[in-house]
Amino acid sequence: MRFFSDNAAPVHPRVMQAIAAADTLDTAYDGDVWSRQLDARFSALFGTEIAVLWVPTGTAANCLALAALCPPHGGIVCHEQAHIEQDEGGAPGFYTHGAKLILAKGEGAKLSPQTIAAVLDPIRDDVHQVQPHAISITNATEYGLIYTPDEVAAIGALARTRGLGLHMDGARFANAVAHLGCTPAAVTWQAGVDVLSFGFVKNGGMSAEALVFFRPEMARDARYRRKRAGLLFSKGRYLAAQLLAMLEDDLWLANGRAANAGARLLAEAAGDRLVHPVEANEVFLRLSADEAALLRAAGFDFYDWGVGEARLVVSWDQSEDAIRPLAEAIRAL
Amino acid sequence: MRFFSDNAAPVHPRVMQAIAAADTLDTAYDGDVWSRQLDARFSALFGTEIAVLWVPTGTAANCLALAALCPPHGGIVCHEQAHIEQDEGGAPGFYTHGAKLILAKGEGAKLSPQTIAAVLDPIRDDVHQVQPHAISITNATEYGLIYTPDEVAAIGALARTRGLGLHMDGARFANAVAHLGCTPAAVTWQAGVDVLSFGFVKNGGMSAEALVFFRPEMARDARYRRKRAGLLFSKGRYLAAQLLAMLEDDLWLANGRAANAGARLLAEAAGDRLVHPVEANEVFLRLSADEAALLRAAGFDFYDWGVGEARLVVSWDQSEDAIRPLAEAIRAL
Amino acid sequence: MRFFSDNAAPVHPRVMQAIAAADTLDTAYDGDVWSRQLDARFSALFGTEIAVLWVPTGTAANCLALAALCPPHGGIVCHEQAHIEQDEGGAPGFYTHGAKLILAKGEGAKLSPQTIAAVLDPIRDDVHQVQPHAISITNATEYGLIYTPDEVAAIGALARTRGLGLHMDGARFANAVAHLGCTPAAVTWQAGVDVLSFGFVKNGGMSAEALVFFRPEMARDARYRRKRAGLLFSKGRYLAAQLLAMLEDDLWLANGRAANAGARLLAEAAGDRLVHPVEANEVFLRLSADEAALLRAAGFDFYDWGVGEARLVVSWDQSEDAIRPLAEAIRAL
Amino acid sequence: MRFFSDNAAPVHPRVMQAIAAADTLDTAYDGDVWSRQLDARFSALFGTEIAVLWVPTGTAANCLALAALCPPHGGIVCHEQAHIEQDEGGAPGFYTHGAKLILAKGEGAKLSPQTIAAVLDPIRDDVHQVQPHAISITNATEYGLIYTPDEVAAIGALARTRGLGLHMDGARFANAVAHLGCTPAAVTWQAGVDVLSFGFVKNGGMSAEALVFFRPEMARDARYRRKRAGLLFSKGRYLAAQLLAMLEDDLWLANGRAANAGARLLAEAAGDRLVHPVEANEVFLRLSADEAALLRAAGFDFYDWGVGEARLVVSWDQSEDAIRPLAEAIRAL
Repeated sequence: MRFFSDNAAPVHPRVMQAIAAADTLDTAYDGDVWSRQLDARFSALFGTEIAVLWVPTGTAANCLALAALCPPHGGIVCHEQAHIEQDEGGAPGFYTHGAKLILAKGEGAKLSPQTIAAVLDPIRDDVHQVQPHAISITNATEYGLIYTPDEVAAIGALARTRGLGLHMDGARFANAVAHLGCTPAAVTWQAGVDVLSFGFVKNGGMSAEALVFFRPEMARDARYRRKRAGLLFSKGRYLAAQLLAMLEDDLWLANGRAANAGARLLAEAAGDRLVHPVEANEVFLRLSADEAALLRAAGFDFYDWGVGEARLVVSWDQSEDAIRPLAEAIRAL
Repeated sequence: MRFFSDNAAPVHPRVMQAIAAADTLDTAYDGDVWSRQLDARFSALFGTEIAVLWVPTGTAANCLALAALCPPHGGIVCHEQAHIEQDEGGAPGFYTHGAKLILAKGEGAKLSPQTIAAVLDPIRDDVHQVQPHAISITNATEYGLIYTPDEVAAIGALARTRGLGLHMDGARFANAVAHLGCTPAAVTWQAGVDVLSFGFVKNGGMSAEALVFFRPEMARDARYRRKRAGLLFSKGRYLAAQLLAMLEDDLWLANGRAANAGARLLAEAAGDRLVHPVEANEVFLRLSADEAALLRAAGFDFYDWGVGEARLVVSWDQSEDAIRPLAEAIRAL
Repeated sequence: MRFFSDNAAPVHPRVMQAIAAADTLDTAYDGDVWSRQLDARFSALFGTEIAVLWVPTGTAANCLALAALCPPHGGIVCHEQAHIEQDEGGAPGFYTHGAKLILAKGEGAKLSPQTIAAVLDPIRDDVHQVQPHAISITNATEYGLIYTPDEVAAIGALARTRGLGLHMDGARFANAVAHLGCTPAAVTWQAGVDVLSFGFVKNGGMSAEALVFFRPEMARDARYRRKRAGLLFSKGRYLAAQLLAMLEDDLWLANGRAANAGARLLAEAAGDRLVHPVEANEVFLRLSADEAALLRAAGFDFYDWGVGEARLVVSWDQSEDAIRPLAEAIRAL
Repeated sequence: MRFFSDNAAPVHPRVMQAIAAADTLDTAYDGDVWSRQLDARFSALFGTEIAVLWVPTGTAANCLALAALCPPHGGIVCHEQAHIEQDEGGAPGFYTHGAKLILAKGEGAKLSPQTIAAVLDPIRDDVHQVQPHAISITNATEYGLIYTPDEVAAIGALARTRGLGLHMDGARFANAVAHLGCTPAAVTWQAGVDVLSFGFVKNGGMSAEALVFFRPEMARDARYRRKRAGLLFSKGRYLAAQLLAMLEDDLWLANGRAANAGARLLAEAAGDRLVHPVEANEVFLRLSADEAALLRAAGFDFYDWGVGEARLVVSWDQSEDAIRPLAEAIRAL
């Protein structure tokens, strides 16, 4: 059974049905009846008027967000383990035309006002040094930790004080909200977030993420940039339909809860082995090479994570029954 | 009935089935069993060893191709009515980091060695002028004309003589091959084409185009650029499956033929009204405002094309029976 | 004697003296006493509060101006013979990160509201087409014609109506003002110009041009971009000193008048041969290959300009006595 | 007396004379008799056939070098305190179109094969991570340490093994060679360096650095990029003349030795206060706020460098007699 990643999991049946249902002739690009519902549907979810663009990948969502917040000659503070720094193949440099990622530290890939200030404060305000224009945080983080509304608000306050924009990479936003039990608003715009990459692909979608602008006027330029990046699908309705299906009856939240629950099962089994607290759907645990081999021999697949550690990721479609054998195998090590 | 464009048409049922069939857990990105078949399947189709990348849009395919052929300080010759110049929102400038489109002329958006040489010859070979590095042609052209293998070969010879790469925008490549009755090879690599944007979305696909490198080593950098552009889907199998379904039993060719046949029906009806010969699935005809209004009142939708002209595009799914009423309405004007 | 171009002429002795006089230890970059006078001195010249940056080349001045007026996804209208389009090696594409030059027509490389509107009007206001953000005109033009204050104001009004910025490439601004006899203000900010590349290198300077922002707040980002482009000299005082020397006692204007006067001498001699009216310091004339050979045999050097034409450029340092022999040789053809 | 930096020092009289001597009409850009001597003169100095371009600033030299060695989607390893990372306003991101600086560590801003390998080894060879294409080292380093030929050769060997290019930022190359007493060849191309930014501005020049390509074919594209960056002066002879004057009778080396000697005087006075060994012309020393105030009250100007430290830089024109008072004041603290 695969615990590699949630990014290759199957598509939720209701999403697949929505795609099939969109298979009628309609207007091209984002003029169709599905795309035109997005702003209203997401505005309802977030309780404020927002502008939403579908994009096909999380990398595209993140980088269009960064380009909206930072000019080419500026910089964006992020964690040194952030996905935008580590795993997007330099896409931020492409989309921002060479802006700089300013790398901050923090346990579990989580930033705080203190660690952000630690990299901001030494920057001289002159033309020789790249000036910060934005902060990007990931919720849940790359190590499965979750920013609370208060934690985001503290960073949001810093951003406002320093005149910086605030982006949230929400590739696993559903897992974060499922864990927090708060409204989506509480951990985003009410806490100072300007732009959110709201991920659906890891959570039951096929090929659609939502790029959410809490200041709707920012979406105008982003629409031009989306086209200029070759991301404006002529049959955009198939993307919009996915997003609508995920919002319907809060499917996104149910899926996030399911994956979190599975990870909790594994976390309980892992006990002292845990490298980070398990708050979302990722479990990082200490595992010797022999132990890893044992688990693999038993049919469980996952990534090694550096030496002596491993990463297990639970997907929306893995039931507790399906996960229990791995939990037991870990306990038995 | 809609004759706006082929780019919003429904997805072919066999493509939809292929997408559904790909809905199993597999490796992420392009490591899945579908993506890994692409090189071999397209190599068989073209009769030579090639490298193929799926990308979601024609704009992305075109611009990754241009970036592979031209450095940021270079230029690309294309028709002044080419899609890359007119309708891609400046995407070539983004992907090539500011390379220049050098605009040539020609009836029906079709270039010839003569019209290309006419813009190349005045360029001084010094650092003050942008030097050409590539030529891009569209087959079928934006006005529905088709380059024959001999015509492409003449441009290919010019490209080789001048040390330029040759790209073919094949958004409607299927319609071109259907019209020519030649092999796909004859009108591409055998005629000097280095990179082809092989379009499927206008021809029954949902969200997958094939970026075809006839010099496979060029694909290496393109894979990095695809990721860097946010175009590497984590569930790439849904794109690869579309392409495989389109190749199966030459579905792409059948669809291209069907659309061409429909356009021929309209062309015969249009007679003297035709602005360009109808070789693919687009029909440009002279139509007064009153005549256009009459057709629209009868339920036919299409774009005006400048003053006194209109464009009708036939899609793969429109049967001759479905088209005949429009043909008759035109004849009756 | 050389009539190739004004861009390789010697440096005016007063400029050379100013450079020597600046040879003392002072603050680096643009913190020195010379650089800090620029805003005030140019503000006095233009009769309004402006911000001025020294830059070393006209290409750099033009392209920093364009980058200030146009985002990467936008376009700039210019003449198809404009220096930024023809002779800057693609620098606009580099500095603007791939914005598009939208090419308009007009006799003698001169634009008008009509020829500008002719390229603006067909642009659809959608994301598929690059939207215009600025207009760039050259005064004097690349063919030595001069925009009057009224002509600039007409274009300025169009720019304002359409929400576009207006840039003036003033590589030969001195020749233009010398010809017009107006104030520098009348033909720039009072006529709607937002940014001026005020050229000095062709007019007696060594390596300094002035980038003039009539909306001073625009200079802020430009200072970052100047550094980012590697254009912030550590010994900037040698550039500032050149500019101050050129402003002193209106040396710039005297030099412009001198060059214009020389060109008028040639123009009178050329008579019917003139291709364009001679308003600045450039003379374009019809000249057969044999005639050109005759002149060259007599020791006069110049560029052929296409077939059957030639370009003669008079520099600030060429006295009427020095030019008279060429004038007579032309008359004697 | 100023010990802020060597970058604002006066111009050497022989350089000033060379500039004055170049004040005759000649060919524009780099076609003049001075520019055309550069390749031969530098080839003689380095004992191998090389190609040399003048550029006006060290930032421009460095960034054109990086762009020659690294594609937009690649990365360049440099020290986290390197000038290209810290003090060039993001110019590397501009010139390379968004390539990534991969930051390594090392005492005194000095890299070693070990610290370089420490950042290279964790990079997965896949499209998700930016792949390294080059290494950039600074000699003398930003903290005044000097790489020996053997140390450079060790890095050069690593570069060759990993298929990476090697750039040397030689803003203070003269100080390095003066200290080493080796040939310029020994510490550059013979040790594996591909491109050198050979600095002259900090060492008695006015506005010219030499961009040295040890693989001459690499200069071809760089010439286009130089123009495209607005760096091709129309009166390039004034830059070339500076470089030739600096090479004449090894003026560059004499100036480097003079500055180093002055720094040694200060270093001896500083004794235990030294933060780094003094090998070039920079002295970093521990200095309390009170002590710094004392020195400033005595008329010595310099930068604080973090808390409790200061940086003193000696320029080519500061004689030992001029420096001795500061040395004595330090000793007296």
